[in-house]
Amino acid sequence: MASNRPIKDSPIPPASERIPTLILPLVGDKAKRTLDVLERFVEDECIPSDPVFDSLLGRNTIERFSAHPKIIEDLKSKAKSLGLWNLFAPKGHFHDAHGKDISAGYSNIEYGLMAEILGKSAIAPEVTNCAAPDTGNMEVLAKYGTAEQQARWLKPLLDGKIRSAFLMTEPDVASSDATNIGLQMTRDGDYWVLNGAKWWSSGAGDPRCEVYLVVGKTDPHNPDPYRQQSLILVPADTPGMTVDRMLSVFGYDDAPHGHGHITFENVRVHASNMVLGPGRGFEIMQGRLGPGRIHHAMRSVGAAERALEYLIARAADPRKKPFGTLLRDHGVISERIAKSRLNIDAARLIVCSAAVKIDQMNAKEALKEIAEAKVFVPKVLGEVVDWAIQAYGGAGVSQDTPLASMWAGGRTMRLVDGPDEIHLLQLGRAENKKGNAALAKIKSQKSKTEQLAAAYGVSDKLEKLALNRVRGSSAKL
Amino acid sequence: MASNRPIKDSPIPPASERIPTLILPLVGDKAKRTLDVLERFVEDECIPSDPVFDSLLGRNTIERFSAHPKIIEDLKSKAKSLGLWNLFAPKGHFHDAHGKDISAGYSNIEYGLMAEILGKSAIAPEVTNCAAPDTGNMEVLAKYGTAEQQARWLKPLLDGKIRSAFLMTEPDVASSDATNIGLQMTRDGDYWVLNGAKWWSSGAGDPRCEVYLVVGKTDPHNPDPYRQQSLILVPADTPGMTVDRMLSVFGYDDAPHGHGHITFENVRVHASNMVLGPGRGFEIMQGRLGPGRIHHAMRSVGAAERALEYLIARAADPRKKPFGTLLRDHGVISERIAKSRLNIDAARLIVCSAAVKIDQMNAKEALKEIAEAKVFVPKVLGEVVDWAIQAYGGAGVSQDTPLASMWAGGRTMRLVDGPDEIHLLQLGRAENKKGNAALAKIKSQKSKTEQLAAAYGVSDKLEKLALNRVRGSSAKL
Amino acid sequence: MASNRPIKDSPIPPASERIPTLILPLVGDKAKRTLDVLERFVEDECIPSDPVFDSLLGRNTIERFSAHPKIIEDLKSKAKSLGLWNLFAPKGHFHDAHGKDISAGYSNIEYGLMAEILGKSAIAPEVTNCAAPDTGNMEVLAKYGTAEQQARWLKPLLDGKIRSAFLMTEPDVASSDATNIGLQMTRDGDYWVLNGAKWWSSGAGDPRCEVYLVVGKTDPHNPDPYRQQSLILVPADTPGMTVDRMLSVFGYDDAPHGHGHITFENVRVHASNMVLGPGRGFEIMQGRLGPGRIHHAMRSVGAAERALEYLIARAADPRKKPFGTLLRDHGVISERIAKSRLNIDAARLIVCSAAVKIDQMNAKEALKEIAEAKVFVPKVLGEVVDWAIQAYGGAGVSQDTPLASMWAGGRTMRLVDGPDEIHLLQLGRAENKKGNAALAKIKSQKSKTEQLAAAYGVSDKLEKLALNRVRGSSAKL
Amino acid sequence: MASNRPIKDSPIPPASERIPTLILPLVGDKAKRTLDVLERFVEDECIPSDPVFDSLLGRNTIERFSAHPKIIEDLKSKAKSLGLWNLFAPKGHFHDAHGKDISAGYSNIEYGLMAEILGKSAIAPEVTNCAAPDTGNMEVLAKYGTAEQQARWLKPLLDGKIRSAFLMTEPDVASSDATNIGLQMTRDGDYWVLNGAKWWSSGAGDPRCEVYLVVGKTDPHNPDPYRQQSLILVPADTPGMTVDRMLSVFGYDDAPHGHGHITFENVRVHASNMVLGPGRGFEIMQGRLGPGRIHHAMRSVGAAERALEYLIARAADPRKKPFGTLLRDHGVISERIAKSRLNIDAARLIVCSAAVKIDQMNAKEALKEIAEAKVFVPKVLGEVVDWAIQAYGGAGVSQDTPLASMWAGGRTMRLVDGPDEIHLLQLGRAENKKGNAALAKIKSQKSKTEQLAAAYGVSDKLEKLALNRVRGSSAKL
Repeated sequence: MASNRPIKDSPIPPASERIPTLILPLVGDKAKRTLDVLERFVEDECIPSDPVFDSLLGRNTIERFSAHPKIIEDLKSKAKSLGLWNLFAPKGHFHDAHGKDISAGYSNIEYGLMAEILGKSAIAPEVTNCAAPDTGNMEVLAKYGTAEQQARWLKPLLDGKIRSAFLMTEPDVASSDATNIGLQMTRDGDYWVLNGAKWWSSGAGDPRCEVYLVVGKTDPHNPDPYRQQSLILVPADTPGMTVDRMLSVFGYDDAPHGHGHITFENVRVHASNMVLGPGRGFEIMQGRLGPGRIHHAMRSVGAAERALEYLIARAADPRKKPFGTLLRDHGVISERIAKSRLNIDAARLIVCSAAVKIDQMNAKEALKEIAEAKVFVPKVLGEVVDWAIQAYGGAGVSQDTPLASMWAGGRTMRLVDGPDEIHLLQLGRAENKKGNAALAKIKSQKSKTEQLAAAYGVSDKLEKLALNRVRGSSAKL
Repeated sequence: MASNRPIKDSPIPPASERIPTLILPLVGDKAKRTLDVLERFVEDECIPSDPVFDSLLGRNTIERFSAHPKIIEDLKSKAKSLGLWNLFAPKGHFHDAHGKDISAGYSNIEYGLMAEILGKSAIAPEVTNCAAPDTGNMEVLAKYGTAEQQARWLKPLLDGKIRSAFLMTEPDVASSDATNIGLQMTRDGDYWVLNGAKWWSSGAGDPRCEVYLVVGKTDPHNPDPYRQQSLILVPADTPGMTVDRMLSVFGYDDAPHGHGHITFENVRVHASNMVLGPGRGFEIMQGRLGPGRIHHAMRSVGAAERALEYLIARAADPRKKPFGTLLRDHGVISERIAKSRLNIDAARLIVCSAAVKIDQMNAKEALKEIAEAKVFVPKVLGEVVDWAIQAYGGAGVSQDTPLASMWAGGRTMRLVDGPDEIHLLQLGRAENKKGNAALAKIKSQKSKTEQLAAAYGVSDKLEKLALNRVRGSSAKL
Repeated sequence: MASNRPIKDSPIPPASERIPTLILPLVGDKAKRTLDVLERFVEDECIPSDPVFDSLLGRNTIERFSAHPKIIEDLKSKAKSLGLWNLFAPKGHFHDAHGKDISAGYSNIEYGLMAEILGKSAIAPEVTNCAAPDTGNMEVLAKYGTAEQQARWLKPLLDGKIRSAFLMTEPDVASSDATNIGLQMTRDGDYWVLNGAKWWSSGAGDPRCEVYLVVGKTDPHNPDPYRQQSLILVPADTPGMTVDRMLSVFGYDDAPHGHGHITFENVRVHASNMVLGPGRGFEIMQGRLGPGRIHHAMRSVGAAERALEYLIARAADPRKKPFGTLLRDHGVISERIAKSRLNIDAARLIVCSAAVKIDQMNAKEALKEIAEAKVFVPKVLGEVVDWAIQAYGGAGVSQDTPLASMWAGGRTMRLVDGPDEIHLLQLGRAENKKGNAALAKIKSQKSKTEQLAAAYGVSDKLEKLALNRVRGSSAKL
Repeated sequence: MASNRPIKDSPIPPASERIPTLILPLVGDKAKRTLDVLERFVEDECIPSDPVFDSLLGRNTIERFSAHPKIIEDLKSKAKSLGLWNLFAPKGHFHDAHGKDISAGYSNIEYGLMAEILGKSAIAPEVTNCAAPDTGNMEVLAKYGTAEQQARWLKPLLDGKIRSAFLMTEPDVASSDATNIGLQMTRDGDYWVLNGAKWWSSGAGDPRCEVYLVVGKTDPHNPDPYRQQSLILVPADTPGMTVDRMLSVFGYDDAPHGHGHITFENVRVHASNMVLGPGRGFEIMQGRLGPGRIHHAMRSVGAAERALEYLIARAADPRKKPFGTLLRDHGVISERIAKSRLNIDAARLIVCSAAVKIDQMNAKEALKEIAEAKVFVPKVLGEVVDWAIQAYGGAGVSQDTPLASMWAGGRTMRLVDGPDEIHLLQLGRAENKKGNAALAKIKSQKSKTEQLAAAYGVSDKLEKLALNRVRGSSAKL
C-alpha cells in the first residue's frame, strides 16, 4: 500500500521523551536527565569516533591486538566529566566488601534504557566503563570478592584502568550445558593448577586485560553436578597460558578486545584467588548472567534503533530514487519500516518486563522473562538490520555503513550465553508444567458442558454437525 | 532440543497473580478481585456453555438467526449478580447526557485484562454486556447522545435488554478509506432518507437488535472530505431496510449475531435521530475506534491463551504418544509452545502499552500504539491457534475443539477495522517523518568523523580496507 | 518497489502452452490435447457450476447429506462425451483381474497436470470420475481385487454409478502411526466381525456411497506390527454401522461427500470381501498412498493458481483503488503476486519431480520426493490463498469468493495422510543416514588440509586469525 | 517429532547418481562422467586447499591483494589434466571471431550441475577457469569481440593466464536501474576519455587482472535510454585509474580477487577497444546476465548442499550430545535438516528450469525463470547456512568452519545483479499483465453461474447463507 500524500518532517525527540508510557513511572528524574546527556554524548561523540577508532587500530592483525588508541582515553575523560561512568552498577545491589554502596544509583530498568543508547555505538560501552565482560566481572567481584581481591582488581576496573576477561566456554564440548566444563583445577599446596582450553574468551585480546575469571572443575566427581565447578581469578601474566589465536566473527576480528582461544598448561594460581571457595562456580555463573542478558538485550534494541534510523534515512535520501520515487514511497520498504518500528517497540517492552522483575524480585524469579528477551531481541535486531542492508545495497554489506558489523554482532547474540534453542527448551518446559492442569481443566469443562446440555435438552445435538444416520437397513430402526 | 528430565506439574495461578510485573502498578485492588471472579465465571460457566449455546441454535439457517436461547439470559443473571456487568465502560469517560458517571469504574488497562479473559469464551462478552458492537455503540450514545436518544437506546443497552448494530462498511468500495462511504442521506422535511447498501453489519442478525448506527453521506460535495459523513440512529423496524443475506466467515455463520448484508431503499429516519448533527460522522467514528481496538486485541490475547492451553493439554495427553513419546517431549512441539508463550507475552505488553496511553492521554495520542497492537496481536493469535490445530490433527479443524472457529475469528481480525496493510502504511508514514532528521544526523556524524580522523591523523585510512593502488603505471606516482 | 510504467495486457495461454520446459518432453500429444479440452470444461462448465451445486444442496444439514443434485449427472455426461473420464487411471499400471488394461492412457506426470486443472473446481474431480477417495479405492480394487470384487464394485465405480469411502483414521489414537489402528476384526465362521470406530471417513456422507474399504486389525498379536492389519470391503448397508455424525472443516460440512464419524457394532462381513487376505492391510495402504498424494498435491497447485488468478484480478479491478491507485500498483501487493508465481512454479516442479519418479520407478523409490511434495505444496497454497483473501477483505473470508473454502481445504492438507511433522521427520531421518559419511568426509578433508598446509609451509597460520601471544612472561619463550 | 529407532548409515552416492529424475534425460553421458571426476577433484583437492590458500595470502591487507599463491597454479594444472577446464563455455553458443566452436561441449543445464559442485569450494571456480567475472567476460568477448580483441584478451583468459574485471556498478546512484549509469565516455580523436567512478568492481583486486570491461555513457542525451551506454575494454595499466580502496563483505576482503572502488580521471582508451560499437552497451549487459545468474544460482545450490553436509555431520557428531542425545535426535534440528533437503531440492529444480529454457530457447525467453531462480536460491542458501551455523555455535560464526563466509557470500547474492525486490517487481509486473484477462474470466464465470442457477431453479439461493429477512414491519410484505 502506498499513499501519495507528502510526508511531513518531524524531529527525533530526546531520549527522556521517548520512554514508553508503560515504563515511565519506573524512571526517576535523575535517570531521565542522564539519558539525555548520555544520548548526546553517544550520538555526538562516540558514534563519530567509531570509525576513527577502527582506523587507529591499523590493518595488521598483530598490531590490532596490541593497540590502545588514545581516542578511547579522551572519550573516557569526557564521559567521567559528564557523570556517565559505571552506569550499570545497580542501585541497592552493588556494595564493596565493607558493605559500602558503590553503585551508580540506577535501577536495572533505568540502566536498561541507558544500555539501549550505548548499544548504538561500538565504543560507547567501553568509554563509559559499561562494557562486557567487565560489567559482569565487576558484579562478581563486588558481590563475592574478598577485600583483597577487590582492592587488586575491582578498584582498577571501576576506575577503567584495566580490563578483564571471563573464561567459561570450551571448544569440543556442548558448552550450552555448564556441567560439561572440562578445564581441570587440581590442588597443589597453596595453589590450584589449571590445565585445559577455553575459547570465546572475550576481552582476552586487549593488551590492558589484567585478570581472567576462569571457570573450571575442582571436584569432577561430586555427585551434585552443580557443585563440581569453581571460579578463580588468574592474573593475565601467569605463566602457562597461551592466547593461541583469536576467533573471527564472520570476517570481523573485534580487535583489540577480541575472542581468544587460550590453552592452559600447568597454570599455577594461588588459592587466595578462588572466589567464594571451591564448588561455588555454578552459583556465581548463574548470578552473573541475569542482568548481563538484560544489558546485551537492551544494547541490541539500541542497535536495532540505529539500523532503523539508517533505513529511514536511506528511504528519505533524494539521491536514491529507483524508478523516480523515494524509497519510502515504495510500499515494500515502507512496510518494512513499519514492522521494524513495531517489533523494536515490542522488543523493548519484553526486555523492560524482565528488568523490572529483576528490580522488584531477582534474576531467578525473572528466568522466564529473561529467556523471552534473550530469544526475541536478536531476532528483531537481525531482521531490522537485514532490511536496512537490503535498502543500502552494496553500501550495506561493506564498511561504508555500520550495518554489516551490526548484523554480525546481532547474529552472534543468538548463540552467546546459550543458543536460542536452549532457552526455548527451558521456556517450553516451564510452560509444559501447566500441561496436566490444562488437561484437567478442559476435561472438567467438557463434563460441565455435558451436564448443561442435558439440563437444556440438547445432549443429542452436542458437537454434532448432523445426522445419526444408520446406513444398514433396519438394524437399529 | 529436548531434555529427558521429567517435567514437574504446576497449577495455573489465578488471573490476579499472572499480571505482568510491568503492568501491576496500574491495576487497582478492585480490578484484581474482579479479574479473579471473572476468570472463574468464564472458565466454569461460560466456556462450558459455549457448545450448548450453539446446539440450542439448531442447524437450520433461518432458525439460527431467530433464536435466543435461554442459557444467555441465565448467564446474564449470574454475571449481574457477580458484579460482572458493563465492565468495559471506562472510568472517568462514561457519563450520561446529564453528566452522571455511569462507568463500571475500571481504567482501559484494567478492563483490558478483563477483556483478555472474556476472549476465551464465545458468549462471555455478551453475557457480561461487554460485546461488540454494543460496547462501542454505548460509548457513542453516552458521549454524544441526546437525553432522548439515551433514554430510548442507551438505557436498555446498558441493561442488556436490546442489542444494536454498527453499519459502516459497504460492498464494492475500498472501505478501508472512510471517505469512500457511499450510502446517501438526503434531507426531506423532518426526515433523512437513506439509500444504499451496507455489509458486515455485525449484530444485525440478532432478533433482539433494535437499533442500527448507520454512517452515510449527508454532504457529498463538502470540500472537506471528513465533513461529508453523518451518523444516524435507525430503529431496526424502519420500513425500507432488507437484511438481504448473512455473510459467512469461512464456514461459520456466527449466528444469531451474524454479519448482515443490508439494503436501504428510501428509509425515512426522523432528524432527531442524527447524532451530534450533520457532518460529524467521521469524528464519531474516530472516537469510537480506539478503545474498541484495544478490546478486540485483548480478547484475541485471551483466545491465544486458550489455544495455548489446548496445545499444552494435548502435549501432556497420555493417550497421544506418537512413537511412544508424549507430544511435549517432541522438540518441535515444545519449541512451538515456548514461542507461543513468548509471543503472547509480547502481544499483551503491546496492547497494554496502548491501553495505558489511552488512559493517561487519549486515543488520538495513542495512534501508533493502537496500530501496533492491531497488527501484532492477530498475527500471534493466528500462529498459536495454527500450532494448536496441528497438534490436534483432525480434532483441530473440526467442531471437536474451539480451535477452528477461533482461527476463523482471528483471521478476520486482520481485516476488521481496516486491513493490516493500512495500519502498517500509517505506521510507516509516521516513522518516515523522522527520515530527514535521521539523514541530517548521519551526515553530521560523518562530518564529525572526518574532523576526528584528521585530528587523530588517520584521514587516509578511514573506511578503507586497503590500498590506494594505482594500477596505471606511473600516472599518479 | 513500484514502477509507474503502465502494465500491458496479456492473455492467459492454454494449458498445453503453459507446461514448464523441463516437463514438456514427458507430456505426449494426446495428453496435451486432453489438457486443453479439460481446461475449457473446468473453466467454462465446472467452476460456474460450483456455487449452483452448493445452492442445490440446500441449507438444512440432513437435506445436504441426502441430496444428489442433477447438475452432477449432467456434467458427468458432458465429461464422458469429451473423453474426460477416469483420467487418473495410470498407463501401464491399471489392469482388471483378467489382466486387461483398463487405464485412461496417461502417465502420472500427465495426469498430474490434469489434476492441477481439476483442482480449480470443487466438483470437477467428481464429474470426471477422478475424485478421492474413489480413485485410490479403484486402484486398490484394480490391483488387488478378485474378479468378483471387481465386478461388484470396481465396474460401477469406473462407470461413476456408485461412490466409495476409505475408512482408516480413528479417533483417540495417534493415527499418524498406522500400527495404532484399533478397529477389531474377529473371525466367526465365514464372516469377519467388526467392532470399533472410524472418523474422517471421507465420502461416507454421500447417499450414493455403496462400499467402505475398512482397515482394521485381524491379528493384533502378530510380532510383525505391519502384518496385523487387514482391509475388507463392507457394503454400506451392512447392519451395525452408524454414521454418528459428520465432522466440519472450519465450519464447512463438505456435503454431501462429508467426513463421517462411524461406529461399528458387531458388523458381520463375509470373508470373501477381504482384499488380498488377512495381514495384507498395511501393504495395501502403502501402495494406495503414493499416487494419491501426487493427485492431492497437484490439485492444490491448481487451487493455488486459481487463488492467484483471483488475486491478480482484484489487483487489476478499477473499482478497488485505495488511495487512488490500483492494488497492483501498491508494492506490497505486487510483491505478493510475484512470490505467489514463484512459489507455485516451485511447487509444481516439486510434485512433477515425484510424479516422474513414480512413472519411471515406483512410489516406494519416490518416497523422498512424495514427502517433499506433501510438505511443500500445502504451505504454498495456504500462503497464496491467504494473500488473496487479504486483498479481497470481507469478500475474501465470506461466501462471495471461493477463497475461504479453498483455504480451509488447503489447511487440512497439512494434516491429511499424516501431519507435515511426520513427513519432515522421515525426510530428516533419510538425510541423517548420510551423517556419518559427511562427518568422515569433513574429517578427511581437514586432514588433507593439514597435509597441504605442511607442504606449502603454512601449518602455523592455518585457521588462525592471529597471534600466538604468550601472555605469561617468559613461560614459553 | 522424534523417533527413537536408530538411524542406519548410508553413503553419499556420486554426483551422476544424484541427478533428479526430472533432469536426467537432459544430461549426456559425457557430462555425467565429468560430473563425477569434477566432484572428486573438488571434494578431494579444492576444498582441502581452501584454507591453505587463505593462509598463503597472509594477514596483511596489502599483501593479500598482491599475492598469487602457487597452490592455484598447481590446482589449475590438475584441473586441465582432468579435462575440467572452461566447463562453462556453452555448447553451440561459443565461437570465436572466425566462427570456430571453442566451447567445452556442455549445455547450460549440464554445466549448471557442474557449477553446483564448483560452488562447494572457494577456489574451485578459479582453478577450473570457471570463475566470475571471467566467464561472463569471456562470453562477451567470444560473442561480440573482434579478432584482435579476442587475440589480446580472450585467448589468455581461456588459457587462464590473466584475469579480468567487469565494471558496471557505481556509487551514489540507484544502480539497479541501468539507465542511471554515470561514468562519462567522451570521444577525443581515436580515443574515448573516461571520467567517473565504479565500485563493486569484482576481480579488480587480483594482481593478474589485465583487462576491465567498463560500462559508461557515450551518448547521455539519446532519447532511447537503452542506447546511451557503451562497453569498452580498458587495459588494467591504463593511466588515470586508481583502485582507491577495496570493499569488505561482512568483514571479509575476498582477497586477492576483491571488490574495488575505482576512480577514473581522464582515462584514455583507444576506440578500437569499444565492443560492438557505441550505444550497444545495454544490449551486451543483457546478454551477459542470463547464464551468469544461472551459474551464480547453481553455485549457491552447491554451497547450500555443503552447508547441509556440515549440518548433518554435526548432528551425527558423538562429541556433541546436549542432554545426552545426538543433535540429530533433537526434533528441532532434525526438522531443519528435512526442510533444508526439501528447499535445496526445490531450488535446484527452479534453476534447472531456467537453464533448460535458456538451452532450448534463449535467456530473454527465460526471464521469468531466471528471476525466480535469482530470488529463490539465495533465500534457501541463507536459511540452510544459518541453521548450520546455529548447530555449530561458536565454530559456526568463526573461521573454524566455512559457514560464516558462505553466509556472507550468500547474503550478498540477494543484492548482486539487482536486489531481490527489483526481480520480484518484474515478476509481479509480468504476472499482472494477465490481470484483466483474469478479471474478465471471473466475471464471465459469474455470469455463467447466474444462468445455471436460473436453469436449475436456485437463483434466489445463490451465495446466500440466509435469509431475506425484512426487518421493517410490513414494508415489503
